[in-house]
Amino acid sequence: MSGKLVVVGLGPGSPEQVTPEASAAVAAARVFFGYGPYLDRLELRDDQRRVASDNREELSRAKAALKAAAAGEHVCVISGGDPGVFAMAAAVCEAIEDGPGPWREIDLVIVPGVTAMLSVAARSGAPLGHDFCAISLSDNLKPWTVIEQRLRAVATAGLVIALYNPISKARPWQLGTAFAILREVLPWTTPVIFGRAAGRPDERMSVVTLADADAKQADMATCVIIGSAETRVIERPDRAPLVYSPRSIGERR
Amino acid sequence: MSGKLVVVGLGPGSPEQVTPEASAAVAAARVFFGYGPYLDRLELRDDQRRVASDNREELSRAKAALKAAAAGEHVCVISGGDPGVFAMAAAVCEAIEDGPGPWREIDLVIVPGVTAMLSVAARSGAPLGHDFCAISLSDNLKPWTVIEQRLRAVATAGLVIALYNPISKARPWQLGTAFAILREVLPWTTPVIFGRAAGRPDERMSVVTLADADAKQADMATCVIIGSAETRVIERPDRAPLVYSPRSIGERR
Repeated sequence: MSGKLVVVGLGPGSPEQVTPEASAAVAAARVFFGYGPYLDRLELRDDQRRVASDNREELSRAKAALKAAAAGEHVCVISGGDPGVFAMAAAVCEAIEDGPGPWREIDLVIVPGVTAMLSVAARSGAPLGHDFCAISLSDNLKPWTVIEQRLRAVATAGLVIALYNPISKARPWQLGTAFAILREVLPWTTPVIFGRAAGRPDERMSVVTLADADAKQADMATCVIIGSAETRVIERPDRAPLVYSPRSIGERR
Repeated sequence: MSGKLVVVGLGPGSPEQVTPEASAAVAAARVFFGYGPYLDRLELRDDQRRVASDNREELSRAKAALKAAAAGEHVCVISGGDPGVFAMAAAVCEAIEDGPGPWREIDLVIVPGVTAMLSVAARSGAPLGHDFCAISLSDNLKPWTVIEQRLRAVATAGLVIALYNPISKARPWQLGTAFAILREVLPWTTPVIFGRAAGRPDERMSVVTLADADAKQADMATCVIIGSAETRVIERPDRAPLVYSPRSIGERR
């Protein structure tokens, strides 16, 4: 007997940014696995059960969810943002690949959501308006040398960079080093956006130059967007500046 | 007198993937500017007016919308997917930067949405599960040499690549050339996903190897995702394969 596993993205934090598809998936499921603060965003019924786990236990959480689904439960794994961007969908796939055969027979559905860089971009203009990339700064999951190579490669190639997992208590120096590397490649006037809790009441957004970018402005929940040499800032009277990356290269300037 | 301009992302196509925030923004606005097929997705009231324009008229559409907002209208500019990803938000910012001063005083709100690569990824597993980039293949907006350099740089650096605007009648050869370039850098077994209308009734998804990737499988509405050397395919009995990029590098293989 095989149940169902739905991996749901709740978006950046505001209930207004949860899709109807995600809400319906939550309403239909019975057992919920996730990081505690994400589960706290759900209003569950009495017939729905939650199994909270710590932030760094993605793989064991995925396995527990698959085990419950394989036993016939209708299971929901909760992600913030989009589950496919540095989140639970890849952990579930890894667990399936390495797990028992019947896990491949589970009805697996992944429900996309608005990922952090999109909401931070929307609040600041259109910094992702042309080619861009998303890079996790966590060297728990890949060697730091790989991260350095990627930062240099994408900045040199002219892509805007969205950094996920920029900093944590266990990883205090990486973001500062990333800024130092990028200052070797990009103009020091390049705009840098620190976006936290975009669209929520506790939202905190700031725009600085790469010269002034300070890792202390970020925490675990911040998405940092670093422009390309093309990215521009429009000052506005009595409003926050707009940051945007033009759709075209080479014709305007 | 200055009105309001809301740039709204309707997501990939399914009404179930339109956020409540986007629906509320549409309900509140009075004049709608957009590409005809996107406007067709709205159910407008009698007191709401639509101004449709062609797909390649982003800048003139943005100017017309700003002009109406500056005249005091409550204006909505409609994008498919997310307005900040190769869509209308950057065009509006460009128009503001080059336009008359009062346009900077307009109350501008950008409402994010689920962009195509996220919905295509969700339907196929977790191909964007680690570092990735989004590149527009349109050489209307940048020189082809820049596109070639970027493709080589990001593939060499190990990022998964989501290609937007892969092909059109006026740009028939670019996608095939992109595959040829990527075959010089990536293993020919690298998974390639062609995703069209993900989440809609006319959805069409396919997974092939880079060796077999054929530009004829794509059209204007397709998002093409090309894995990295790390991206894996899980075969499943009686189900589509899962494609995913592991969260970590260097520890599993």
